[in-house]
Amino acid sequence: MRVMGVDPGLTRCGLSVIQSGKGRQVIALDVDVVRTPAEQPLAHRLLSISDAVEHWMDTHRPDVIAIERVFAHQNASTAMGTAQAAGVIALAAARRDIDVHFHTPSEVKAAVTGNGRAGKSQVTEMVTRILTLQQKPTPADAADALALAICHCWRAPMIARMAEAEAMAEAQRRKYQATLKAAKTEAKSVPGRMSRSAT
Amino acid sequence: MRVMGVDPGLTRCGLSVIQSGKGRQVIALDVDVVRTPAEQPLAHRLLSISDAVEHWMDTHRPDVIAIERVFAHQNASTAMGTAQAAGVIALAAARRDIDVHFHTPSEVKAAVTGNGRAGKSQVTEMVTRILTLQQKPTPADAADALALAICHCWRAPMIARMAEAEAMAEAQRRKYQATLKAAKTEAKSVPGRMSRSAT
Repeated sequence: MRVMGVDPGLTRCGLSVIQSGKGRQVIALDVDVVRTPAEQPLAHRLLSISDAVEHWMDTHRPDVIAIERVFAHQNASTAMGTAQAAGVIALAAARRDIDVHFHTPSEVKAAVTGNGRAGKSQVTEMVTRILTLQQKPTPADAADALALAICHCWRAPMIARMAEAEAMAEAQRRKYQATLKAAKTEAKSVPGRMSRSAT
Repeated sequence: MRVMGVDPGLTRCGLSVIQSGKGRQVIALDVDVVRTPAEQPLAHRLLSISDAVEHWMDTHRPDVIAIERVFAHQNASTAMGTAQAAGVIALAAARRDIDVHFHTPSEVKAAVTGNGRAGKSQVTEMVTRILTLQQKPTPADAADALALAICHCWRAPMIARMAEAEAMAEAQRRKYQATLKAAKTEAKSVPGRMSRSAT
């Protein structure tokens, strides 16, 4: 499976592509950071990010895009811009029929370091070790993008099992409702039976 | 000037197009609300919104897009989705080289009702009167989209004057810095003069 990891942002947007192999084997294929100048109008910054991301998607042809889930309460001043960047990236994926998954920062940290509250340097350290890179990826956005892709590779089997379980539960719910409806219809068609049960 | 007003949102996204005439004259050309089901994946919802907005842009060919500015602290649970929707709309405008302007909810309310803290019903009431509509636009998102476009039409001359003043200030700043640089270069090229002035 080929996973593209995205740490969304207007000023710096981290992009990575990772190929997963057997078990927990992961190989880094590419990593970069897209920057847009703060003095540019927002719409143009989003366009630059979208163009770069679309170029990556068309070049690397990932099976899945893993994006960091942004919360409104963390860093409110940049949260809206980050969400807008994440929006145009998810849109680019939808246009290409590529699956999009969101992972929270603590899910990513927990996946690569075993600690959901790990610091930036610890994440960079573990990413460098896991991918056996010659040097530490910089800036932190590049390391985060790699960590996101690793996180998705490792969580994917669990996500697939969860989706399967949910689909099964949904099928059972539908089956139960169909049985219930059939029983009600039957009860209505035999009016005597309903009043009998009511008495 | 033709202005497209957008009240961004994932569940309901209000769209309007208004033509401005002489003075404060405004004519409503179209208004609608795009809805996307909550059970759909986020990326697909953004795609539906983007497709609808792009269709509007290509049909109505607006000169400007006016989008409501979202803040992280107001309604945190929906703020991120709203920001993502606003992001894909701004992107669609940038792709067509259409100017994008953001207006805060209080700017919009103040423009159409004279009160930045006006309620939804008051905004709807004033929008109906200003555009001399036969009936009140519903839901509130439709009225908000119209209010946004009206707000932009009326604020546009002021925004243009502000941009002009800023450009003039920037030109003056550059001219001053050029003069300063020239003076420094001159001072360096005549070393005796600098030490003389220092003594």
